[in-house]
Amino acid sequence: MFLNLRRLCPLGSRAKFLRTIYPSNILGLSTSAKMSLKFNNAKRIEGLDSNVWVEFTKLAADPSVVNLGQGLPDVSPPRYVKEELAKIAAIDSMNQYTRGFGHPSLVKALSCLYEKLYPNKINPDKEILVTVGAYGSLFSAIQGLIDEGDEVIIIVPFYDCYEPMVRMVGATPVFIPLRSKPVDEKRWSSSDWTLDPQELASKFNSKTKAIILNTPHNPIGKVYTKEELQLIADLCIKHDTLCISDEVYEWLVYSGSKHLKIATFPGMWERTITIGSAGKTFSVTGWKEALAQAFWIDIKRMDDPECYFNSLPKELEVKRDRMVHLLESVELKPIVPDGGYFIIADVSSLDVDLSDMKRNEPYDYTFVKWMTKNKKLSAIPVSAFCNSKAKMQFEKFVRFCFIKKDSTLDAAEEIIKAWKKQKS
Amino acid sequence: MFLNLRRLCPLGSRAKFLRTIYPSNILGLSTSAKMSLKFNNAKRIEGLDSNVWVEFTKLAADPSVVNLGQGLPDVSPPRYVKEELAKIAAIDSMNQYTRGFGHPSLVKALSCLYEKLYPNKINPDKEILVTVGAYGSLFSAIQGLIDEGDEVIIIVPFYDCYEPMVRMVGATPVFIPLRSKPVDEKRWSSSDWTLDPQELASKFNSKTKAIILNTPHNPIGKVYTKEELQLIADLCIKHDTLCISDEVYEWLVYSGSKHLKIATFPGMWERTITIGSAGKTFSVTGWKEALAQAFWIDIKRMDDPECYFNSLPKELEVKRDRMVHLLESVELKPIVPDGGYFIIADVSSLDVDLSDMKRNEPYDYTFVKWMTKNKKLSAIPVSAFCNSKAKMQFEKFVRFCFIKKDSTLDAAEEIIKAWKKQKS
Repeated sequence: MFLNLRRLCPLGSRAKFLRTIYPSNILGLSTSAKMSLKFNNAKRIEGLDSNVWVEFTKLAADPSVVNLGQGLPDVSPPRYVKEELAKIAAIDSMNQYTRGFGHPSLVKALSCLYEKLYPNKINPDKEILVTVGAYGSLFSAIQGLIDEGDEVIIIVPFYDCYEPMVRMVGATPVFIPLRSKPVDEKRWSSSDWTLDPQELASKFNSKTKAIILNTPHNPIGKVYTKEELQLIADLCIKHDTLCISDEVYEWLVYSGSKHLKIATFPGMWERTITIGSAGKTFSVTGWKEALAQAFWIDIKRMDDPECYFNSLPKELEVKRDRMVHLLESVELKPIVPDGGYFIIADVSSLDVDLSDMKRNEPYDYTFVKWMTKNKKLSAIPVSAFCNSKAKMQFEKFVRFCFIKKDSTLDAAEEIIKAWKKQKS
Repeated sequence: MFLNLRRLCPLGSRAKFLRTIYPSNILGLSTSAKMSLKFNNAKRIEGLDSNVWVEFTKLAADPSVVNLGQGLPDVSPPRYVKEELAKIAAIDSMNQYTRGFGHPSLVKALSCLYEKLYPNKINPDKEILVTVGAYGSLFSAIQGLIDEGDEVIIIVPFYDCYEPMVRMVGATPVFIPLRSKPVDEKRWSSSDWTLDPQELASKFNSKTKAIILNTPHNPIGKVYTKEELQLIADLCIKHDTLCISDEVYEWLVYSGSKHLKIATFPGMWERTITIGSAGKTFSVTGWKEALAQAFWIDIKRMDDPECYFNSLPKELEVKRDRMVHLLESVELKPIVPDGGYFIIADVSSLDVDLSDMKRNEPYDYTFVKWMTKNKKLSAIPVSAFCNSKAKMQFEKFVRFCFIKKDSTLDAAEEIIKAWKKQKS
């Protein structure tokens, strides 16, 4: 057998191994070897072997496919960000080990940035930890804080790694759905999706070690309001629960919405681990590199429209609106996101005949495979963001990424319009 | 309380978080918070909270100290390696996510390189996994393969992370020492340190899931011979045991020794996970970046003395010899390493009066702290590489790193000579 590489790597495919070459593992458990119990993978990773990113990113690797799947920007990162990496590569000392918890100048830049958003001082040496990827932060926080037998509340749909990471430590994920209000004729918005306060309260008990919050939300694009966060905060305080707040899209919020940090709520600073992302912030998802200089440049101009934190959401809002109109034009009902760079839409009205496809998976998995193959357009199935019981509820939804060059969106538009024409 | 950041991060300080900015974790468990059981760290990381690199790297951060502690090269990385990073930073698509198991061009370069050393073909897509740091490889291999209750054989002294990583998964480390032959008047060499074959055999049983091998060895610099590796291979096959072979210093081997890969031994390919390191190979310990181009440049000239794999050990051998003479000149007895860029020496003949120092730790810890403070020379205590029972055996040894510019070694020499003069 071959060792399943994915399973060997507890961080999975989003683990940002990308462009990291440091070490090569030559794994040599060959097919001819006599199978033995000793060669089995460890029990803690049993059942954690499927991964939507691996499956669909591979499918979309075909260069003829317009890839709106993974959140992979094909817009350029800011020029100064790329320049800083090139400059730093030339400095000998910057090519070697630094402080393990984060380069001193980087944690200083981050504390300076976040002190503008928090009412309190932030100690760069004790309160900021730089990790390899947001995936690395989530993994470290869960491994470091959650014990076997603990319960962790996860809001459905959720970024897919939350569940296996919680299961890997022997804890129990407790799921609560976001539910949509009926919207009838009005445009469907991510803010129509809310938690039921009583249902949420019923999930907390003495075993609840943490709740994982994600705002702006992937894949719905929901930006939690002050009232919604206050509800979560009150329950965390009442039940003495930690909050792991995944805020990697914090800068990507559109007109009319405002990103709030739950750690700024009274009583929450001391129980919140907030996860940010420089890769998302500067559109360099392949980098886990020194971005301290880039942060300093933008910290100095935070109130300026040219600050990347301000200019990127403006730029993306135009792309979001374009995508909404495009999806509506073919009678798909998108949920308009208030933040992030994803949009999900119910594809059932397309009524695609999938009878030729193998079907031992949710509808949306098969649909995206069909669309990638036949329409050369790729996306991500939303049931991947659900626990097994909740998959049914979301299996008619597909997630499109819109942090793309206009030419990529043009290509997607052409495919969708031709598809519509063919149907009518 | 503050969360202990180190404990939150299961990969510890060698985890190559350095220069990776991707996400900032704002950790806010403040001192004023009422302590609660729920805020405790998870049991799996209990007792894994001390880390020699964090403690001594901090100490050596004083710019007046000559730092021969951590394996932090202050020589320049090859120019073309730095140039490749700068070039790649300018290509938009190279700044985004790639294949999770390793960039296609990188795994291809690695399979091409290692096919020159193995008798078999290597499938770049299935048999090579790129991780964040060798630490990431070790961690993933152990988490993915070792179960609670398994036994893992560790050879003492050992790179310090092996023990906590094995303990973190609930497995039992089984220690076996390298023992030195009496050397009397002859120069002491790393090859004088060997495993006792019967003692090694006695450590294997039906619970033994893996043995961790490290060649060239850190900190002794031992390069295992064919006969020594055959002994280990025979036992692995007999007891159906995996071998995790940490070969991060594989290119740094000096005249008279040859690095052999245990995975090339009959019956071992299918049970070996070999860990290599581009950071060590190209002297860019702070990079986890795309080095595919650098690899291609050196693959093409592997038989050429200018190939970095050949020129670096030549350059380092001169530095090794200089360090041996320097240590001998002050009557310290260094163990001459056959590989790697560390040298360990017994410092007990210096007879330093440590009575002023606090002493609730092994002698070498106190000695290095004293030397860093009073002599402005830093090193790493070797007892950090030992399980608690074996610490006594090595607590008079100190590890010096010699991958340093001549000016750094000059400064170290000046310090040591002045020290000797003062004594006599």
